[in-house]
Amino acid sequence: MTIATVSFIGSGNLATHLAKAFFRNGIRVNSIYSPNFSHAATLADTVDAKAAKDIKAIAPSDLIVICVTDSVIQDVSNALNSQSFVVHTSGSTSAEILRGHQNYGVFYPFQTFSKNVELDFSEVPVFIEANSDSNLLALQELALAISRKVTVLDSQQRLKLHLAAVFASNFSNHMYSIARDILSKADLPFDILNHLIQETTTKALQSDDPAKGQTGPAVRNNLNILEQHKEILADKPLWQKIYTFVSNSIMERETERKNGTFQR
Amino acid sequence: MTIATVSFIGSGNLATHLAKAFFRNGIRVNSIYSPNFSHAATLADTVDAKAAKDIKAIAPSDLIVICVTDSVIQDVSNALNSQSFVVHTSGSTSAEILRGHQNYGVFYPFQTFSKNVELDFSEVPVFIEANSDSNLLALQELALAISRKVTVLDSQQRLKLHLAAVFASNFSNHMYSIARDILSKADLPFDILNHLIQETTTKALQSDDPAKGQTGPAVRNNLNILEQHKEILADKPLWQKIYTFVSNSIMERETERKNGTFQR
Repeated sequence: MTIATVSFIGSGNLATHLAKAFFRNGIRVNSIYSPNFSHAATLADTVDAKAAKDIKAIAPSDLIVICVTDSVIQDVSNALNSQSFVVHTSGSTSAEILRGHQNYGVFYPFQTFSKNVELDFSEVPVFIEANSDSNLLALQELALAISRKVTVLDSQQRLKLHLAAVFASNFSNHMYSIARDILSKADLPFDILNHLIQETTTKALQSDDPAKGQTGPAVRNNLNILEQHKEILADKPLWQKIYTFVSNSIMERETERKNGTFQR
Repeated sequence: MTIATVSFIGSGNLATHLAKAFFRNGIRVNSIYSPNFSHAATLADTVDAKAAKDIKAIAPSDLIVICVTDSVIQDVSNALNSQSFVVHTSGSTSAEILRGHQNYGVFYPFQTFSKNVELDFSEVPVFIEANSDSNLLALQELALAISRKVTVLDSQQRLKLHLAAVFASNFSNHMYSIARDILSKADLPFDILNHLIQETTTKALQSDDPAKGQTGPAVRNNLNILEQHKEILADKPLWQKIYTFVSNSIMERETERKNGTFQR
């Protein structure tokens, strides 16, 4: 079976990038449904699809892609025809949530998506899972139409991958955000950090273990500086707690690394 | 006054990169002293300098650059001739620690240095401070010989800059490190994150405020996923605490952003 037509439930960042990638690569997008009709209509316009006014009104398609926040996946699934082949796109939700359908799976593009930032989907890893070998093959073929990096991953591993991504992407972005706010209070511009941030990232990506390249007062066990920094953060209790626990974790990891007690 | 000759106290990452940058740009490096003589000798060889066996034996130089861990800057300063022009290279130490000298200041290259990773020093911001206008001009001229980005910054602002750098560089690197360890336990390779990490960094650097581009379960207030993730981290209490407080901080910042209550 080849998936030639898809429909979307949802019209957020992920749905937008995914629908565009399908459209550009010759997969027909039939319908887009979103509780917010004008959102759905905007996206539908750009990919030559129809916006559906009701979830029951989406056109029959080889695959229905659910791109909604995790907590409503179950409701959406229940609202869809159980004969349809459906996938969700969530990192932390088991494929089994869709087991009310004869054909189901997961299609998880592994990226941080912002609506207004164009990205080259061919470099975005896509992780797939399905309830049967033939469905898995169909999802693989579809994924390969838009990405060069397609991997089969079960729900347990995907959950851990998602957790790792939260640290590597969401949390590192929040570290940038806190840094920006500290600079802003000191009347210094955020772009003063550009070169440092780029160099840190480049170094980490060239390494098989970023812990080996850890720098800063915590890994040097420079307790005087840690105290000075915590003092500056006295008026921001959450930032102070983050400072304390991340520093402790850096020191713990460094001790394990030096003693060779860290496994893998 | 033009600084034509320098000597170094210390032979670690920063001393190595700085001495090489001076050497390449025609500033003569006279002596290098380190408690570990063979370290000093190795660096001295690469920049046509002499390794000193004793801190008192360093050759007279226009400037002495102290590149040692913050807690021993005072001791090093006391051991040096009070007639010498000395600078330290620390982000979080006041210039005043050197006030026993007639001429003193700070020469703070703002970068994460690893000994074995070559870097283009011309793009490294250098922040300077001095105890007199003429010393400040001399440091500026020296800094401009190796970097295009030289800025005068007082000790209070430098401390905050350093704190921001700890979040943006040291802490984001530790987020990568935790992600790598989580993947490792799930038998997944770290380089699975390459594209995600690069994209996150690129997005943040293109923004004047990374909080606007924040993604992930915390900013979406997806409490179910937060609970699932914390459960996976049950055997790593520090990681669990980091997960909790960073997520709370993301949610707090998002609330402030939406309500317009975040100042600057």
